[in-house]
Amino acid sequence: MNNSPRQMKLGAFIYPTGHHVAAWRHPDSQADGGVNFKHYIELAQTAERGLFDMMFLADVLSGVTRQGEPVTTAARGSHFGHFEPLTLLSALAAVTEHLGLVATMTTTYNEPYHVARKFASLDLISGGRSGWNLVTSANTDEALNFSSPAHALHADRYERAREFAHVIQGLWDSWDEDAFTRDKASGLFFDPTKMRTLNHSGKHFSVRGPLNVPRSPQGAPVLVQAGSSDDGKDLAAETAEVVFTAQQKLETAQAFYADVKERAARYGRAPDDIKIMPGVLLIVGRTEEEARAKYHSYQELIHPDVGLMQLSRSAGVDLSGYDLDGPMPLTIDVQGPKSRFALISKLATDEGLTIRQLYMRLAGTRGHWLLVGSPAQIADEFEEWFVKRGADGFNILPALVPTGLNDIVDLLIPELQRRGLFRRAYEGRTLRENLGLRKPSNGWRFAAGTQAQRTA
Amino acid sequence: MNNSPRQMKLGAFIYPTGHHVAAWRHPDSQADGGVNFKHYIELAQTAERGLFDMMFLADVLSGVTRQGEPVTTAARGSHFGHFEPLTLLSALAAVTEHLGLVATMTTTYNEPYHVARKFASLDLISGGRSGWNLVTSANTDEALNFSSPAHALHADRYERAREFAHVIQGLWDSWDEDAFTRDKASGLFFDPTKMRTLNHSGKHFSVRGPLNVPRSPQGAPVLVQAGSSDDGKDLAAETAEVVFTAQQKLETAQAFYADVKERAARYGRAPDDIKIMPGVLLIVGRTEEEARAKYHSYQELIHPDVGLMQLSRSAGVDLSGYDLDGPMPLTIDVQGPKSRFALISKLATDEGLTIRQLYMRLAGTRGHWLLVGSPAQIADEFEEWFVKRGADGFNILPALVPTGLNDIVDLLIPELQRRGLFRRAYEGRTLRENLGLRKPSNGWRFAAGTQAQRTA
Repeated sequence: MNNSPRQMKLGAFIYPTGHHVAAWRHPDSQADGGVNFKHYIELAQTAERGLFDMMFLADVLSGVTRQGEPVTTAARGSHFGHFEPLTLLSALAAVTEHLGLVATMTTTYNEPYHVARKFASLDLISGGRSGWNLVTSANTDEALNFSSPAHALHADRYERAREFAHVIQGLWDSWDEDAFTRDKASGLFFDPTKMRTLNHSGKHFSVRGPLNVPRSPQGAPVLVQAGSSDDGKDLAAETAEVVFTAQQKLETAQAFYADVKERAARYGRAPDDIKIMPGVLLIVGRTEEEARAKYHSYQELIHPDVGLMQLSRSAGVDLSGYDLDGPMPLTIDVQGPKSRFALISKLATDEGLTIRQLYMRLAGTRGHWLLVGSPAQIADEFEEWFVKRGADGFNILPALVPTGLNDIVDLLIPELQRRGLFRRAYEGRTLRENLGLRKPSNGWRFAAGTQAQRTA
Repeated sequence: MNNSPRQMKLGAFIYPTGHHVAAWRHPDSQADGGVNFKHYIELAQTAERGLFDMMFLADVLSGVTRQGEPVTTAARGSHFGHFEPLTLLSALAAVTEHLGLVATMTTTYNEPYHVARKFASLDLISGGRSGWNLVTSANTDEALNFSSPAHALHADRYERAREFAHVIQGLWDSWDEDAFTRDKASGLFFDPTKMRTLNHSGKHFSVRGPLNVPRSPQGAPVLVQAGSSDDGKDLAAETAEVVFTAQQKLETAQAFYADVKERAARYGRAPDDIKIMPGVLLIVGRTEEEARAKYHSYQELIHPDVGLMQLSRSAGVDLSGYDLDGPMPLTIDVQGPKSRFALISKLATDEGLTIRQLYMRLAGTRGHWLLVGSPAQIADEFEEWFVKRGADGFNILPALVPTGLNDIVDLLIPELQRRGLFRRAYEGRTLRENLGLRKPSNGWRFAAGTQAQRTA
């Protein structure tokens, strides 16, 4: 269907001051970035100059601390107090032309009609550039802001998320592309035979529809997911069009890539219907030395309280009170996943790291895959992952913004272009066209047999 | 506190193609206005050129028809298929500098944390120009999109709305203005002593807080309401800063004005803390004749099905099947308020109007107060209402856009300015400053004794 060579897709995953945990303290960072609209305009326009497929924003619906953490430590973090993603992306739609706009919105504390409508609206405002990152909420603190005493179990969250996705896709199919005739002479505003009333009735939701937003230029917003559990991968295989994933090694990335595409085939989907994009925290310099010097300059700004909190979160334990220059405790109450704790304590034991050395290794990147190097070094790594089917592209996390994003656009993108791995101009007008995703045909999802029906 | 003469406040209440029910069929209208972002940019910039305090958008969370109406008739209406208001206003924030941005969001099918956060975010993006129009949902069709089998009773809706407003105001007070220090040297991002955790626990909501959005330049978004029942007026008196109201006669407007301001006094609020703004559907011409000709050109475009549907909605009866050129039936099953039916059938009887004549009288304006005239005629009316304390300003509904809004800005605004009734330049940078509303001081609402507490 497409004879041009396969090229990688790139997302710019933006945190207000950058993804490195101490980036905000660096002289180059915009410390008030989270609430500085001009800062985001600059970032969006830079990403667009770099021909990125999309800007991606994460989200969390809660506050300062996670349970049990002291607010005084949280007060040293940078990621608190920022724009709500969809409001921000709408505003950015007005000052960009090509960049895809992808925001996270949880299925756990939202109603599908709202979510379908807001992303459909952004899709029309932006001329077909919106995407929804479907997540479930695992953060127990979020429940406390939504009148939910106990957090829903993992399995229930995914069951709800799956029904949520079906309802949303049904609502996005409420109208044929040519339903709104707006014929002044006859006085017919829309053609009722081109409208579908969803009439969904399920375990978690009853939603009649139709959506009060017409079909968008790209047919429907792009559906993004990042689940890594079996439930998450299955849901992605069934419904997602882009999958973000946290991978540190090519072998595991290849296994994940193959796994998701195989699962998708079971739902009758083609491999190209889902783009797999590992996330990578990037620090690019003109030379390796320059890149390493930058990384070092961020690392030395990590406050010990923040380092310890980040390590505690990653390992699922409470390390407060332990000697920073002593060993990682091996007998300690583990609240998080045991497997993660085992991995981290093994690293400490194998390399004989103190707590401080351990958090310096892990905290800065908050667990993300990190690449520090020259444009050629990073392009080598990208190329290998891409060619060997560990990735269809990458969701790039600039360590510090705005300068880190400038480096990526000015140094790395030209190198990828030179190798023929990345576009030299946007292929289309919509996010879907740039990602090489099919435009859903009118009512395509109804073939699978949902409860929807055409209303005469 | 302010020695300058009292001047009126103006809102531009925008419907996609204009408020006249047949405006979309007119050659001057932008028929796809509801999903045409450039159209809204033009409207917002025109309103800003006219020094309007704000653009206001209504909202509805449901579909095409009200229960029992045929979709074929709904298909002749124009108000279906449009941007979601908050997404739209965020995008407009990027292309305006002074205009207030006020959107409706219902308390019936939303969670306060979401609503507080989105308006706070818009407030920061726009530099302090956002406002929230608090409504409760009376449209039973909305329930069907939100997994609610039966619609909540009126009293319950207002009880929920009141608690909703308290939670929102508490969340907007989560942070002192100077809480975010972002001190790179010390590594302290915010000062924990300037953060408040709401810890609200009530009948309808449990919300811990704090909000993850800092305080905005205007302190908090402006709270707008339009309730006219006793419950609605009480809630407005307690919490609203702008009240939109439907009034047709000066005497009843004066009574409403005095009533709300008296109720507010009981909550310890000053008269100037609430601006009363009646809505008025406006058709301005250079002369009265020109204005009347415009009105006539809209009226003759009303399709009989639409006229009949609109009259049926207003009177709360089903008139389908009746002879358009026969009399209004007086013995008919009334589903809506009996008082409204009585008023309408009395008008028909007193003036001997057929059904067609009756809908021609009522349908075009959909029940709104209508003024058709020259700039001087309309300014006379505005001035009388304003001086005699029937209004602090007006929420203007252009009958047709974009041209109708241009007429208002080019013809009516200069006349109001000439009389000293309206500003010649924006007074401030924020919506609150332009409206002459107090900026809430840090924690002002906590004096009233909510459950909020300062967290150390």
